Amino acid sequence: MSTKRKEITLGIDIGGTNTAFGLVDRDGVCVAISKIPTRGDEPAERLFERIFSAFNQLWEDKKEGYELRGIGIGAPNGNYFSGCVENPPNLSWDRANMVELSQKYYDLPVKVTNDANAAALGEMLFGAAKTMKNFIEITLGTGLGSGIVVNGQVVYGNDGNAGEMGHIIAVHEGRLCNCGRRGCLETYASASGIRRTVEEMLDKSERSSLLRNLPAGSLTSKEIARAAAKGDALALEAFQFTAEILGRTLADAVAILSPEAIILFGGLAQAGELLFAPLRKAYEENVLNIFSGKVKILPSGLDADQAAILGAGALIWSELGVDL
Amino acid sequence: MSTKRKEITLGIDIGGTNTAFGLVDRDGVCVAISKIPTRGDEPAERLFERIFSAFNQLWEDKKEGYELRGIGIGAPNGNYFSGCVENPPNLSWDRANMVELSQKYYDLPVKVTNDANAAALGEMLFGAAKTMKNFIEITLGTGLGSGIVVNGQVVYGNDGNAGEMGHIIAVHEGRLCNCGRRGCLETYASASGIRRTVEEMLDKSERSSLLRNLPAGSLTSKEIARAAAKGDALALEAFQFTAEILGRTLADAVAILSPEAIILFGGLAQAGELLFAPLRKAYEENVLNIFSGKVKILPSGLDADQAAILGAGALIWSELGVDL
Repeated sequence: MSTKRKEITLGIDIGGTNTAFGLVDRDGVCVAISKIPTRGDEPAERLFERIFSAFNQLWEDKKEGYELRGIGIGAPNGNYFSGCVENPPNLSWDRANMVELSQKYYDLPVKVTNDANAAALGEMLFGAAKTMKNFIEITLGTGLGSGIVVNGQVVYGNDGNAGEMGHIIAVHEGRLCNCGRRGCLETYASASGIRRTVEEMLDKSERSSLLRNLPAGSLTSKEIARAAAKGDALALEAFQFTAEILGRTLADAVAILSPEAIILFGGLAQAGELLFAPLRKAYEENVLNIFSGKVKILPSGLDADQAAILGAGALIWSELGVDL
Repeated sequence: MSTKRKEITLGIDIGGTNTAFGLVDRDGVCVAISKIPTRGDEPAERLFERIFSAFNQLWEDKKEGYELRGIGIGAPNGNYFSGCVENPPNLSWDRANMVELSQKYYDLPVKVTNDANAAALGEMLFGAAKTMKNFIEITLGTGLGSGIVVNGQVVYGNDGNAGEMGHIIAVHEGRLCNCGRRGCLETYASASGIRRTVEEMLDKSERSSLLRNLPAGSLTSKEIARAAAKGDALALEAFQFTAEILGRTLADAVAILSPEAIILFGGLAQAGELLFAPLRKAYEENVLNIFSGKVKILPSGLDADQAAILGAGALIWSELGVDL
C-alpha cells in the first residue's frame, strides 16, 4: 500500500543568539522544531553545517511521510533578491549567500528575507492577516522592524530593503539612533526605546516608581509592563509616550499605504492593552479623516515561539503559490 | 482591401475648472485632444453629456481607423475600486459613479482613479519610469498628490485611498491644512505651500525682495521661481525651505518603500534645479545610509499639457495588460 507523502517546508530563523528551525506544513503547523546556538563569531559556513547536521537527524524520522518542497530563511538583513545576508548586526559575517550555503545540503528552492518580512508572510498565511491583501506587520523587539504587504505580496522595493519603518524620523532632532541619525522611530517605539524613555523619566525627576532602583540590567520592557499593570504612574506614562509617537507615525504610514490593518508582533506588543489602548487613541487622533475608524490595529495571531519559523516556512509556501 | 484598425483608449481628465480628453495610442501618442469647461456646480450627468457630445464629434473622424478599447478617467478623489468620485474638492457632486455615467454612452471597460495615480501610470507606460517597477510619483500642484507603484502595480490600498502623501505630517504642530490637521506636507511642499512660505517670510522681516509689493493675486509659484532664477535671496530661501521639508519626508517614504526613483510632476516641479538641487541635497542628508545615492529624484518625462490625458488613457492600457 502506497501513501502520498505530505508536502512540507523547512523554515529557518537565524537570530543573533540562537537559530531555530522546523518543518512547517501548509496549515501552519510546526511538525518538528529544533534550536541550536548561532555562534555569530564563527563563519556562516559552520552555522549551516551545524543546522543541516541537526536537521538531518530530525528529518530521518520524518522523510517517510513528507516531501520537502523548499527552504525558507528569515535572517537579520536577509535580502530576498540576492539571497544573501549583508553586515548583519551581532554576527561577524560581511556577506553570506544563504541560498548557496543551503543548496550544498539540499537541492531545493531556497528563499531568504529578513525577520519582519517573514513575520508578515507568516501572519498572512497562518495568523491575524489570513484574509488580508494589504496590511503592515510591525515587529517590536530590540528595534522596530516592519513587513509591508500590498496586493497580497510582500513589498521588497527596488533592492530588497523596503520596510525599514524603524528608521522613519519620528522626532525631528530626537534621540540618537544606531544608524547615526536622530529621532528614528525605533529609538522610541521598541523594547529598548521604552527603556530609554523610562530611564529619561527617572533621571529627570525624583518621582517614586516601582522602576526606580532596580538591580542593574533588570529594567526591561517586560518589567515596565509589569509595573504599568500594577498602576505605576511613571510606567503608564512611558507606555502613553511610546504609543503617541508610534501612533502618529503609523497614521503617516496609513496615508501612504491605506492598509486594512496594522499588526503588532514581538515582546513589547505582548504588553497588550497597556500599549494597544493608548496606541489606537493616538493613531485615531492623528490620522487623516478619510481613514478614521477604518484601519484595525491588532495583535499578532501567531504563537510567539513559533512565529519566526512559521514565517520562514511561509516564504516557500507563498513562493509555490500553493492554495492555502 | 481591409486594414486592421489600430487599438486606442479614451483618456479623460476631470479638473476643477476644465475637463480634457483625448485618444491615447499604445505608444503614448495623443491622437486627438479636446477640452471643455467642467462646470462643477452642475450635476455630473450634465458633464458626461457634454463630454460625450464633444467626443462623438471628434470620434466621427477617427473611428474608421481605430478600435476603442476602453475609457480611463482621472478625477479628484476618483476611486479605483468603486469607480466613483466622492466629495471632490471644487465640484458640487457628493458622489458620482463615473463607470455608469460613461457606459450610458459607450459599452466599454471604464476605469477610474485620482489624478496622481493616473500620472504615475502615464509615467510608467510612457514617461520617466518606463523601465521601472517601483517608484513614487509626486504631483506638486495646488496640493501635493502621490501615486505609488510597487511591483509594477499602482498601490490602491485596502479602500482605494493609498497615496495620500500630501497628508503626511511633515512638521509637528505646523501649518493648518484644509484637512483640519496641522503640519501636512502639502501645506509646505506645493504651489500654495511655497506661496505661504514667501508670505510668512515677507511678513516676518523688512528684507527687500522682488516678491514684495506684487499686485494682489500675482504671488504665484511661477513668480517665486522667476524671482529665484534672478537671484532673489528671499525666493531662493523659500525654495531651500520647501526642499528641506519635502526632502526629509521623501527620505521617510523611501525607508518604507525602497523605490528606484521619485518622480516630480506639476507646476512647482517645473522650477527645475531651483527645486531639484536643494531637494536632492536635503533628501541625501536625511535618508538612511543603506539607501544613500541609490534613489533617483527625477522630473516627469511626460508633456505637461498631455500628462493627465496620457495617464487616464494608460489606466486602460495597463488594465488590458497590453505589451507596451
